[in-house]
Amino acid sequence: MIVVMKKGATPEQIQHMIRRIEEFGLKAHPIFGTERTVIAAIGEKRDDMRQSLESGPGVAEVVPILAPYKVASREVKAEPTVVRAGSLSVGNCYLGVIAGPCSIENEEQTIATARAIKAAGATALRGGAFKPRTSPYSFQGLKERGLEILAAAREETGLAVVTEVLSETDVTLVARYADVLQIGARNMQNYRLLEKVGETDKPVLLKRGPSATLEELLLAAEYILNAGNKQVMLCERGIRTFETHTRFTLPLATVPWLHERTHLPVVVDPSHGTGHTPLVARMAAAAVASGADGLIVEVHPDPEHALSDGYQSLNFTQFEEMMTLCRKVADAVGKLLP
Amino acid sequence: MIVVMKKGATPEQIQHMIRRIEEFGLKAHPIFGTERTVIAAIGEKRDDMRQSLESGPGVAEVVPILAPYKVASREVKAEPTVVRAGSLSVGNCYLGVIAGPCSIENEEQTIATARAIKAAGATALRGGAFKPRTSPYSFQGLKERGLEILAAAREETGLAVVTEVLSETDVTLVARYADVLQIGARNMQNYRLLEKVGETDKPVLLKRGPSATLEELLLAAEYILNAGNKQVMLCERGIRTFETHTRFTLPLATVPWLHERTHLPVVVDPSHGTGHTPLVARMAAAAVASGADGLIVEVHPDPEHALSDGYQSLNFTQFEEMMTLCRKVADAVGKLLP
Amino acid sequence: MIVVMKKGATPEQIQHMIRRIEEFGLKAHPIFGTERTVIAAIGEKRDDMRQSLESGPGVAEVVPILAPYKVASREVKAEPTVVRAGSLSVGNCYLGVIAGPCSIENEEQTIATARAIKAAGATALRGGAFKPRTSPYSFQGLKERGLEILAAAREETGLAVVTEVLSETDVTLVARYADVLQIGARNMQNYRLLEKVGETDKPVLLKRGPSATLEELLLAAEYILNAGNKQVMLCERGIRTFETHTRFTLPLATVPWLHERTHLPVVVDPSHGTGHTPLVARMAAAAVASGADGLIVEVHPDPEHALSDGYQSLNFTQFEEMMTLCRKVADAVGKLLP
Amino acid sequence: MIVVMKKGATPEQIQHMIRRIEEFGLKAHPIFGTERTVIAAIGEKRDDMRQSLESGPGVAEVVPILAPYKVASREVKAEPTVVRAGSLSVGNCYLGVIAGPCSIENEEQTIATARAIKAAGATALRGGAFKPRTSPYSFQGLKERGLEILAAAREETGLAVVTEVLSETDVTLVARYADVLQIGARNMQNYRLLEKVGETDKPVLLKRGPSATLEELLLAAEYILNAGNKQVMLCERGIRTFETHTRFTLPLATVPWLHERTHLPVVVDPSHGTGHTPLVARMAAAAVASGADGLIVEVHPDPEHALSDGYQSLNFTQFEEMMTLCRKVADAVGKLLP
Repeated sequence: MIVVMKKGATPEQIQHMIRRIEEFGLKAHPIFGTERTVIAAIGEKRDDMRQSLESGPGVAEVVPILAPYKVASREVKAEPTVVRAGSLSVGNCYLGVIAGPCSIENEEQTIATARAIKAAGATALRGGAFKPRTSPYSFQGLKERGLEILAAAREETGLAVVTEVLSETDVTLVARYADVLQIGARNMQNYRLLEKVGETDKPVLLKRGPSATLEELLLAAEYILNAGNKQVMLCERGIRTFETHTRFTLPLATVPWLHERTHLPVVVDPSHGTGHTPLVARMAAAAVASGADGLIVEVHPDPEHALSDGYQSLNFTQFEEMMTLCRKVADAVGKLLP
Repeated sequence: MIVVMKKGATPEQIQHMIRRIEEFGLKAHPIFGTERTVIAAIGEKRDDMRQSLESGPGVAEVVPILAPYKVASREVKAEPTVVRAGSLSVGNCYLGVIAGPCSIENEEQTIATARAIKAAGATALRGGAFKPRTSPYSFQGLKERGLEILAAAREETGLAVVTEVLSETDVTLVARYADVLQIGARNMQNYRLLEKVGETDKPVLLKRGPSATLEELLLAAEYILNAGNKQVMLCERGIRTFETHTRFTLPLATVPWLHERTHLPVVVDPSHGTGHTPLVARMAAAAVASGADGLIVEVHPDPEHALSDGYQSLNFTQFEEMMTLCRKVADAVGKLLP
Repeated sequence: MIVVMKKGATPEQIQHMIRRIEEFGLKAHPIFGTERTVIAAIGEKRDDMRQSLESGPGVAEVVPILAPYKVASREVKAEPTVVRAGSLSVGNCYLGVIAGPCSIENEEQTIATARAIKAAGATALRGGAFKPRTSPYSFQGLKERGLEILAAAREETGLAVVTEVLSETDVTLVARYADVLQIGARNMQNYRLLEKVGETDKPVLLKRGPSATLEELLLAAEYILNAGNKQVMLCERGIRTFETHTRFTLPLATVPWLHERTHLPVVVDPSHGTGHTPLVARMAAAAVASGADGLIVEVHPDPEHALSDGYQSLNFTQFEEMMTLCRKVADAVGKLLP
Repeated sequence: MIVVMKKGATPEQIQHMIRRIEEFGLKAHPIFGTERTVIAAIGEKRDDMRQSLESGPGVAEVVPILAPYKVASREVKAEPTVVRAGSLSVGNCYLGVIAGPCSIENEEQTIATARAIKAAGATALRGGAFKPRTSPYSFQGLKERGLEILAAAREETGLAVVTEVLSETDVTLVARYADVLQIGARNMQNYRLLEKVGETDKPVLLKRGPSATLEELLLAAEYILNAGNKQVMLCERGIRTFETHTRFTLPLATVPWLHERTHLPVVVDPSHGTGHTPLVARMAAAAVASGADGLIVEVHPDPEHALSDGYQSLNFTQFEEMMTLCRKVADAVGKLLP
């Protein structure tokens, strides 16, 4: 940590900050520059010290040197983590493809979709039973009945099931049916929920919040890892920016940036990341080219009659075309799409 | 709702969309323009119809005409809501001032702060017992002991107590001690939590998420209102933008914009909204000038030794100066700061 | 254009707006909904009318139906434009690769780079002679001497030359040396400059401003097209968002979105779009997979000693590796990289 | 400047970076931490060195310690600059109010507006003769005729005239008529234009670009100051964010933040900063409370028939009301509104 003093900080202020650093058990190393003094704090720990030092007298700013995440870091574990859940493998050379409807609406829709996506090459089924909806007046999901339908579709097709858990009180229930627990973007910083899924033995798909920094995403993963669950997939699903032609802006540089810093695999969601059916296949292909370890895509037998997210869902033919394109790009970049 | 067809949409596509609109129980009113056809859907309801129509064949976009929130709307209740909780009144002509430490650290700190802010004119005490922290390695709050300390400070000073509830399973516990339940920015779309606080009889302070639109904020309030609790304060605490010189960007136009559309009072948080002690007082004054119904401000006896948020906390003298400035501005704009 | 009246707008206000629409020579078509009245204005022109109608009495908002750009639109010209300048072809099936140093520093550096990129498969040379720099104290470019060096490199290698023109008074000079005139992101809305390059017969590479919407980008292109120059390439180079781990956020959905709406080719700049050498190759590959018609990439013989932008430049080996990756992805998506 | 080495950087890499720093004429001061090595570069200059060091081997990042602006800095000139132009004084205790139409449309409109705003207390007249318009098909201004009308209005009322200059080739012409040269947001980084207005003896109002950082704004001011013109006003007019209920987001913390770092006065534009007439007066008052040294506001005799920006213009009565509100707030915060 580097404490930058203001121009004109007094010797007393500098002494004060040296003492403060030492109170934290660190070694203080002042450097007297031509215009300003900075104090290096050696032995930095990843904790709340920074906030404390920032309000010291004569301090201009405090610059952290160490990243605040630990267990998620490549510095701690160099080799990439491969997350496995039944038919799904994500990470290293494996490209997982998770597809299915936004909401589970009924058994027929779900099983038809599961069969179609499996035929096209998907390796897991997604579908919402508990739905977080912006408006209290929107369809909120079939709840436990939805989970039963997902389990039936798994029985039928052998596809692993990925579904969202909204609330800490539902974790046990959802974990009984699901192969992968999804944490939605709105809950990325619902720390109690993160801790709860961290106590299960199910892999977790953690979606980035639309205004979360990648550091915040890694710290959210850290809550899960820290609770004992090492099977975490990070998911880029788009951020809030000034752009309005897409529902979110999908920043694919997330993928290589995370790959440099964490061993956890990175999945991309081109459906929420664009919000428009015609853009999904191209952005799925771009995600694969960027090095993504997985895709999660909304597919519906009849998007026009979907109970939610129809405008960003692919129908079966569109999904097949997407898979054809992605398979070629995966070959080009050396990823295995089974 | 206006369905805008693509240039070159066929008569069949237009007929199809007319039928779709009628299936929703609305009247379809097509208008054949020189370049495009649009179809007005009369009898619009606030629900999921839009998503469904958007994926229809030949549709370019769907433009909603009605705002999706209801109970929060001034169209439903024209006169401003005044939220009252003991010593605190917020709304209409009343300016409430909620102040106190980020975290409750111990009884001495809390009671000293409560006395100081009361002397300076604050009308409620804030303080975190359950703390949502970005890192799992940061101080997480004193939990129930923190609530007890808050209650002791209320006993001592008569100030109403505002504190955050992080989890649906804590709502009953926190409501036993608090006068106002705060929903933090990270939980603005934690719908289960919103429903739970909506079932209590305690007023709620609902903070805007850092990437939430005002429509999303109003819909989150709608979850609480819809569960039966009408005492909701909205809180602007800054948004995520490209700016890095402040921790968040504080957009005060939120205040007059919300006042035109909702009867709910609007509180501003200049501490989180700037993230820097030297900017807080000026932005508090600006918030009052913009018409805010309340302020929520971090105050600590010794910010340099605070366990959290020291860099944005005021000490007692700074808070007094802020109050002097705000009182003058409140007079200028006709707000009562008791 | 749809004029949405406020709830409770009076019959007089509605009549007034109908008259206003008719004054603009349009047909007004009012629709009386259950909660609000909207008025469709038929015969819409792409002009300033919207702003004017928005300030009418009782008006809630005005929703435009037609896109404001014309000549750039696929509705006007359905087949994709191919821009050609000597060795460079961009658009339709052709993938152009423009590479070279940020700044032209000297003849040796430039010619060495031109040879290396040509060997690796680039189809044009980029390099700045006039440099727009954030600080007046930074290196401002070699100016005309830089242009001469670029011309010498073209002579030597046959590569077409792409270089930025900063000022309307330099257009004639730069056009004497360059094959393609680049308009930088900071000048995207320097309308006089756009008009001037629109009067030349040189193709133009128009970079998106970091906070420009795609509609604003197309309208900037429209200034050039409208002045008579039809050879315009649009360039996505990243936008300003809250993300700080990259210098800009590179939103590749720009590519398929623009391809649906305009016939102009789309080039992507992964160097400025990421700002970090280790992310460039992956984002170049992702851009190709998204359907980009061209890449523009910073390459320097020795990035550590570059006078500008070293942190985002590739050295020759890194560029070769990038080209190997991109060539495979180009094959996968059916683009010709000669 | 602090060079942060990667974890695991080799002794050779560290030695290399020490040499590099010394090549720049600085003293290198390495600090060997428990996890990483950092090297302080003492004698830091404000120049391009940072970019160069960032691409060194084993370097994780380079953290600048000094702000890159000089002449604009309070470290160089502690007392606030007061900009004066005829009837207008801006800075220190003086609050200037610049009002008038977006576009100069004709003499009658302009003179009527000048009289009305003067009566209400404005201290300068604004109006566009050369208009930068997003679309080439929009009204582009009366050009020199507009300047003549502005001069006539000054003659009539004694109000100083503020008007935009769009192009370096117009600077001489505009400076002949105007008292203050305005640089629009789109041209904030049009460096040639900045240099040209820096060579005149007219005060300059420099608007912040909608995605410019405050550091970039100060560096743009530095171009003008560096060319010899010390009379520069900075103008906050709103930034591009994800918010869509206002045209831009107006971040008033800009005002106190700039006041801490620069002696240049800060003007706020609540018209562009909100884009909606009903929000203007409140945000003007908030700007004054935040400490602004000036306001620039769009006023039109009949906004509904304005040729541009009607939706954000005040009519005469609304402007009078705004002035009444602002005068009270100015009194409260100790600013003189003559």
